Amino acid sequence: MYPVITISREFGSGGHSIGKKVAEALNIPFYDGEIVNQVAQESGYAKELIEEQGEHTSASNKWFDISTASAMYFQSPQDEIFLAQRKVILDCAKKGPCVIVGRCSDYILKNEEIFSVHVLIHADMEHRIERVLERYGENPDVSVKKRIQKKDKQRRTYYRYYTDQHWGDYENYDLALNSGTLGEENCVKAICELAQNLSK
Amino acid sequence: MYPVITISREFGSGGHSIGKKVAEALNIPFYDGEIVNQVAQESGYAKELIEEQGEHTSASNKWFDISTASAMYFQSPQDEIFLAQRKVILDCAKKGPCVIVGRCSDYILKNEEIFSVHVLIHADMEHRIERVLERYGENPDVSVKKRIQKKDKQRRTYYRYYTDQHWGDYENYDLALNSGTLGEENCVKAICELAQNLSK
Repeated sequence: MYPVITISREFGSGGHSIGKKVAEALNIPFYDGEIVNQVAQESGYAKELIEEQGEHTSASNKWFDISTASAMYFQSPQDEIFLAQRKVILDCAKKGPCVIVGRCSDYILKNEEIFSVHVLIHADMEHRIERVLERYGENPDVSVKKRIQKKDKQRRTYYRYYTDQHWGDYENYDLALNSGTLGEENCVKAICELAQNLSK
Repeated sequence: MYPVITISREFGSGGHSIGKKVAEALNIPFYDGEIVNQVAQESGYAKELIEEQGEHTSASNKWFDISTASAMYFQSPQDEIFLAQRKVILDCAKKGPCVIVGRCSDYILKNEEIFSVHVLIHADMEHRIERVLERYGENPDVSVKKRIQKKDKQRRTYYRYYTDQHWGDYENYDLALNSGTLGEENCVKAICELAQNLSK
């Protein structure tokens, strides 16, 4: 049996696409956008709000003066969405081997007795700019680099707020891959081979 | 043809042993202690001094007020050893595929037109303590944890001084592996498989 594979990714590194290909190659479920639908059912919030807030904190600087524990007493919509997401992620993982992208899934599963492996996909700015341009095109109001930096900051803040760890610290991952230098296909192969080697 | 594989490693993570097994499996040369002999010939310094200073800076805090460029004008024995090591590392890498452990080899090769892949091996403190105790035993004067922290600090300072980059930043590596959670054998396999997939 393969482990549950969580994928954390820098915006523009191709982590979503790599995760999808890994799931296809191993013939296991892939959860990314799918989680949004389930969180909508679970929480009663609209899909659009979950998509918008699903990786944003309720206050970008809140983490340094309020602990997650105390935040439970003053739940914002974002906190409720996080808790619903946490439940959905655990439910998915408990069903069996799968690939889950983002949403602090590495942190959420590490504290549970679930056979899992945690992957980080990153790439240098040049490759990320190229990829974002290819996928989303130009935005006349804001440079691609600025969009990438903003998205990174949002994900870092979200991760820090809900896990009290630094996003991207290599200690948090079993495997970290540079999709810029290795290419998408080699990342897919490396993850599949590791999952096969770890398979119980 | 396989790439040259550089391995940066946390003390006690098993990076040396993993590198050696990768070299054996791929049937390519392995350079770690071997570099010391060649640097001794190249620089005229005694092996013992190279072993002691080969990953230490001449002043542990010097990097923040003196650039590598200006340091060239005031070469300490450590700086001369670094330059001799750099030459030996480039000579080894130019001969063909091999595994090179530590000594800023990732940074040295990245600036050259050499087909190479850069790996980081890390592990959590618990696994590292276990491994260091197994290999080197207890030291009545200083705890294992303190020895690990001191060695990490020396390597970080050395790396920072000669590369102006932070040691352990995941951006510097193509592949980072947690030998504590994955185990030594799975790290060996992951590196060998990546080298085979990248092979030209």
